[in-house]
Amino acid sequence: MKIDNILVTGRIYKTVEPLIRTRLNKQLRFLAEEEVKPQDFDWADAYVSFRPTGNFSFGGLKWVHSFGAGVDSFLHNRSWKKDVLLTRTVCSFGQKISEYCLSYMLRETQKHGVYQALQEQRQWNPVEPVSLSSQRVVIYGTGEIGQEVARTLAFFGAKPIGISLSGTTKPHFAEVLPASGAAGSLNSADWVISTLPLTTETEGMFNAAWFKKLQGACFMNVGRGATVDEKALLEALDHGFVRQAVLDVFAEEPLPEESALWQHPKVQITPHISAITGPEEAVQCFLDTLHLVEQGLMPPNRVSTEKGY
Amino acid sequence: MKIDNILVTGRIYKTVEPLIRTRLNKQLRFLAEEEVKPQDFDWADAYVSFRPTGNFSFGGLKWVHSFGAGVDSFLHNRSWKKDVLLTRTVCSFGQKISEYCLSYMLRETQKHGVYQALQEQRQWNPVEPVSLSSQRVVIYGTGEIGQEVARTLAFFGAKPIGISLSGTTKPHFAEVLPASGAAGSLNSADWVISTLPLTTETEGMFNAAWFKKLQGACFMNVGRGATVDEKALLEALDHGFVRQAVLDVFAEEPLPEESALWQHPKVQITPHISAITGPEEAVQCFLDTLHLVEQGLMPPNRVSTEKGY
Repeated sequence: MKIDNILVTGRIYKTVEPLIRTRLNKQLRFLAEEEVKPQDFDWADAYVSFRPTGNFSFGGLKWVHSFGAGVDSFLHNRSWKKDVLLTRTVCSFGQKISEYCLSYMLRETQKHGVYQALQEQRQWNPVEPVSLSSQRVVIYGTGEIGQEVARTLAFFGAKPIGISLSGTTKPHFAEVLPASGAAGSLNSADWVISTLPLTTETEGMFNAAWFKKLQGACFMNVGRGATVDEKALLEALDHGFVRQAVLDVFAEEPLPEESALWQHPKVQITPHISAITGPEEAVQCFLDTLHLVEQGLMPPNRVSTEKGY
Repeated sequence: MKIDNILVTGRIYKTVEPLIRTRLNKQLRFLAEEEVKPQDFDWADAYVSFRPTGNFSFGGLKWVHSFGAGVDSFLHNRSWKKDVLLTRTVCSFGQKISEYCLSYMLRETQKHGVYQALQEQRQWNPVEPVSLSSQRVVIYGTGEIGQEVARTLAFFGAKPIGISLSGTTKPHFAEVLPASGAAGSLNSADWVISTLPLTTETEGMFNAAWFKKLQGACFMNVGRGATVDEKALLEALDHGFVRQAVLDVFAEEPLPEESALWQHPKVQITPHISAITGPEEAVQCFLDTLHLVEQGLMPPNRVSTEKGY
């Protein structure tokens, strides 16, 4: 594929400009999202950003590259033009998300809150930490990110169970089950981690009926907010189906100030940071992908626009 | 070695009694420390506990087995009887201590405190977490426990530097240096973790002069409290040589109520729990060791009473 004109926009367009210009001899436009004009899409062969601008059109585009791992902003509720290649940034998201998840698991198994409280009272009371190997973890999504989370947990002797559409065996999981066969694992799970993308199948799948399958698990969401019925989650927390929720993604982001999630004592909120794309990594992944695209090779980070990931 | 009479005492003597009696056909005495009489040491071939009783004597003992990993209570300021074998519990201490250390590292790199504060104010502010692979870690002690901590950090892409008496290369460390050559690593370290045993060489080695070599590292002690000059540590915290201290062990335990460590804002105290010996593990390790001892084989968990570990 011949790529001459490249349009780069999004949150990090200024930071990446020098990083890309020094390494690439192409016609390049670096613009803030609000500066992008309809005719830029006719000019460009490639569009590079976290999401489409409001006035996005396929114009003359041959290739769209997402700076993020999630591509629902491109695909969800949009009919994709078949011959336009869509790729996404993968890089070290799996490791980043593993460290995020592990930090909240260890905070509990190592009883940080208990010792903090005891220390404030100058009390010496050797409550025993719990080993990660004893924790029953269910991971929704067995792609690159889910596998890396599983690999990390397996390193500590845990035996994570994966849940996917197909239930196809994947590395690092003790077992992979189809979503329809998850109930038996969910009712004994200590932790349920979702790494799912937002697709027609996953939208709202963590609903009231699903939460009732849990018996006190901690629910972590590092996938996409719109997979969760947030009202049902709040009820599940109050009923004890969910012991705690650690949420990095939300149906609406930034999470609206009036959301009841902010002050719920059993909810930990982080502002979509479990896998931030660093500028260096973003540029490297973009250049590596471009290299493959120009050689006519299929990049491993190509998105199936039918599946949505 | 012929072992007929075994004396078991210490904190867990009651819990381990049924576990041992059902698996061992020997003359056994399970006693609370205060119930142990001088003549019990004449009767016993083996003494099994976390520490010597106040009235401990070698009597007829051929073998002493420590339920803990640390044996300083047996060896420090005591002249050991040469033909008495000393063994210690090893089991999964390395993994336990790794999870302990990692939990406090991830708490900081994943910015738990920052997000907690932001959540209380309903503020969405994507401060970026830091990857473990970027953290410079120095580990004092390159034995079984230090190696396991290093292996865990290396899994996440960190390149831990080990410090030992000899500086002999050991697995999982990017480099091992002798204590005398540590200064260059210490001044750039983000974390210094001590897994050192208490010996004549290590007693008080983390003193004022040593702390001045740090430039803002977090100091974690999962070894032995008496290796640290606690007054010097408090001064180093106030001067900023040490950014934070995470302490599981103390010169005096339980940590006295009047200690200034309890309420120092940069000190995290845990009550000697980073490697608690679980009863099941303790019994298994004791039985495995006994098996080797009776066959006249050298147990791998034998302590060098000269070195002190």
